[in-house]
Amino acid sequence: MRIMAASAFNLKREVEYGSPEQNAAVREIVAAVRAKGDAALLEFTERFDGVKLEASGLKVTAEEIQAAYGQVDEEFLAAIREAAANIRAFHEKQKQKSWMEPSPDGTLLGQIVRPLRRVGVYVPGGKAAYPSSVLMNFIPAQVAGVAEIVMVTPPATGGQAGINPYILVAAAEAGVKEIYRVGGAQAIAALAYGTETIAPVDKICGPGNIYVALAKREVYGAVDIDSIAGPSEIVVLADGSADPVYIAADLLSQAEHDEMASAVLVTSSAGLAKAVSDEVERQLADLPRAAIARKSIDDYGAILTVDSLDEGIAVVNRLAPEHLEIMTADPMEVVGRIENAGAIFLGAYSTEPVGDYFAGPNHILPTNGTARFASALGVDDFVKKSSLIRYSREALLKHGGKIMALARREGLEAHARAVEVRLMKEQVKDIGMKEG
Amino acid sequence: MRIMAASAFNLKREVEYGSPEQNAAVREIVAAVRAKGDAALLEFTERFDGVKLEASGLKVTAEEIQAAYGQVDEEFLAAIREAAANIRAFHEKQKQKSWMEPSPDGTLLGQIVRPLRRVGVYVPGGKAAYPSSVLMNFIPAQVAGVAEIVMVTPPATGGQAGINPYILVAAAEAGVKEIYRVGGAQAIAALAYGTETIAPVDKICGPGNIYVALAKREVYGAVDIDSIAGPSEIVVLADGSADPVYIAADLLSQAEHDEMASAVLVTSSAGLAKAVSDEVERQLADLPRAAIARKSIDDYGAILTVDSLDEGIAVVNRLAPEHLEIMTADPMEVVGRIENAGAIFLGAYSTEPVGDYFAGPNHILPTNGTARFASALGVDDFVKKSSLIRYSREALLKHGGKIMALARREGLEAHARAVEVRLMKEQVKDIGMKEG
Repeated sequence: MRIMAASAFNLKREVEYGSPEQNAAVREIVAAVRAKGDAALLEFTERFDGVKLEASGLKVTAEEIQAAYGQVDEEFLAAIREAAANIRAFHEKQKQKSWMEPSPDGTLLGQIVRPLRRVGVYVPGGKAAYPSSVLMNFIPAQVAGVAEIVMVTPPATGGQAGINPYILVAAAEAGVKEIYRVGGAQAIAALAYGTETIAPVDKICGPGNIYVALAKREVYGAVDIDSIAGPSEIVVLADGSADPVYIAADLLSQAEHDEMASAVLVTSSAGLAKAVSDEVERQLADLPRAAIARKSIDDYGAILTVDSLDEGIAVVNRLAPEHLEIMTADPMEVVGRIENAGAIFLGAYSTEPVGDYFAGPNHILPTNGTARFASALGVDDFVKKSSLIRYSREALLKHGGKIMALARREGLEAHARAVEVRLMKEQVKDIGMKEG
Repeated sequence: MRIMAASAFNLKREVEYGSPEQNAAVREIVAAVRAKGDAALLEFTERFDGVKLEASGLKVTAEEIQAAYGQVDEEFLAAIREAAANIRAFHEKQKQKSWMEPSPDGTLLGQIVRPLRRVGVYVPGGKAAYPSSVLMNFIPAQVAGVAEIVMVTPPATGGQAGINPYILVAAAEAGVKEIYRVGGAQAIAALAYGTETIAPVDKICGPGNIYVALAKREVYGAVDIDSIAGPSEIVVLADGSADPVYIAADLLSQAEHDEMASAVLVTSSAGLAKAVSDEVERQLADLPRAAIARKSIDDYGAILTVDSLDEGIAVVNRLAPEHLEIMTADPMEVVGRIENAGAIFLGAYSTEPVGDYFAGPNHILPTNGTARFASALGVDDFVKKSSLIRYSREALLKHGGKIMALARREGLEAHARAVEVRLMKEQVKDIGMKEG
């Protein structure tokens, strides 16, 4: 693993957002689904997934979900139930409450927080089927109070219409009952615009291949979408007290994700830098996904040497990593100085997979330097807020003149008159009362 | 004003997102600013604004801001100060707190809420200069705790480098000290990538013309942006108890904004429908912006008749308006049933300009039906959150097996091993201790 000066390294990768041909193909698919509904879904499912379905076969049945439970082992089931409970408990703490505040003059101001009504989550099929991501997408929506939560996922290719049982069980454990066997850009179009079988949603979440990502971008505006995630990344900030075996294992757990993943160590210890570099080689040797991890480490991995912990913290803040592990003598002393990081793991025992699978915080995190301004997926992503304004007669009489003054400075006379017609009428009433 | 059945009406307008030529022009401007910095800003300012500046003239001086105070009247100053205080007080209530929760086994989970470091706000020049929008953009950022808040605004055209004094005073009252005299796509590029004079920001907010909007979309990813606002809209939900004079005035205050603005009355009272239609004509006659308001009312305005208040509420929820006024006998009875609306104004005295200028809630709101999933600009838009995860040795020994089981079901062996290397080492230690 290359060891280099921190100043020369940038975490940011140029991500490919699709060729003109891919964009055109996606636009065509979306238009076809808008025009032809279910018929287009069935046609694309046959063409792209090699599965011939009837419209009545789009929806996954309760029996299929039940059958999936028979195909997963008890150890998995127990673990995913405990993970789901942890994720639910963490996200419960994110809930914001509506509030209202009255004033003595009859003014009432407030903010109503309400869940989105209907949300769709795309879950990839095939090799990239991650039950943990199913929990991470659905549970925040559920905690937010979203009434209708829908999953779409492609049928297994090669003539089979079945869906990965781990995915089905994870969805069921997260409380999802409405699941459709459809993938790709056509699934996104169905969620955005609706078909005879699939009612349209207010927001679409979840990862997918380039066609799914482009389709999400295409339908944005008609519905909301989550952010389009870049490749995953980890930065470990460590001093000489850290264990190189642990750090190497953690770097590799990120590198195995995909070839564009990035795993970086920032350290002031030359000894640790060398030890981690050696240890990465040793551990890489017998990894099942060694080829992917090797390419990620070679292309986007680095050990960055710094002169001090202070410089290391500055480097971390510049990189703004998705995941940050702090393995220093006193991680709590460092954490307050970290400005930019999606999730922060403290100390030797908080390896990233603890958060990826189990602890409770969301594993869907801002990538590619966007932790400077973005946050983990959470309950806030599934609510909307309405401001509430009630002015009383007394309040309007008192403040109306100031509102008119501001409106007229902006040249918006009709704004001023909307106040003025009320003031005039009320003043007439007042005079009438005095005279009466 | 046309009176029609609600079912035939849709608030959603097809918004133009720029021609290929405009997109190409914006990409060229952004690239030039990235490559040439201040020199490009000066060149575009001369070309588009007709103003020749030196780089040293980009930054508005403290003396200019002071001088602006001499050009605004006392009534404006007093009103904007009171408005700023109200806006600040409302947004203070939106602040979320960081939290941490320890468990007996040494686990610590939490969420740190931190302000963005540096934010830029675009403020349009010329006729569309709205001091109220300056407050609405800056104050939430300031309340969030953003350390550096920057304003960019074009110099007045025609050889003058001056900036609208109302804008400068509003910015100063909102606490902004860093102001640059530059507009258009070049200003957005400078905020995103930085120049010799302007340091780059983490997020760009504020409205602008089509070139500004396209430039924001172009730099998104390098920085965050606020949503790109569509034309403004109001829906009034009223029963026979409402005053047609007030409703007409409120509809017109929306319609005068621009020709694509939409003003809609939803009512179960045929009498009110007729009276409002007549009253709109009467009030329109002598409005300074009558031509704009007329076109808006003709093209995008409507009086929608419904059979009942229940149907009216359903129509409102379908339209998901930016602004909703409820003028029924008991507005508080209705408000809980409104699912989709950016801001809700209750009762006869809560005319929209109360919220546009003064009451405190933000006037930057979701448009074009996006209130189904989006909210007013607020403090949340200027913070980011980091999850915090600390597992103790005890917690990892207890839960590590489950984490490994989940990782292996996803085929991510390196994830499992990141846990396993720790468990093995700790178990060896345990054995050592028992034998010692």
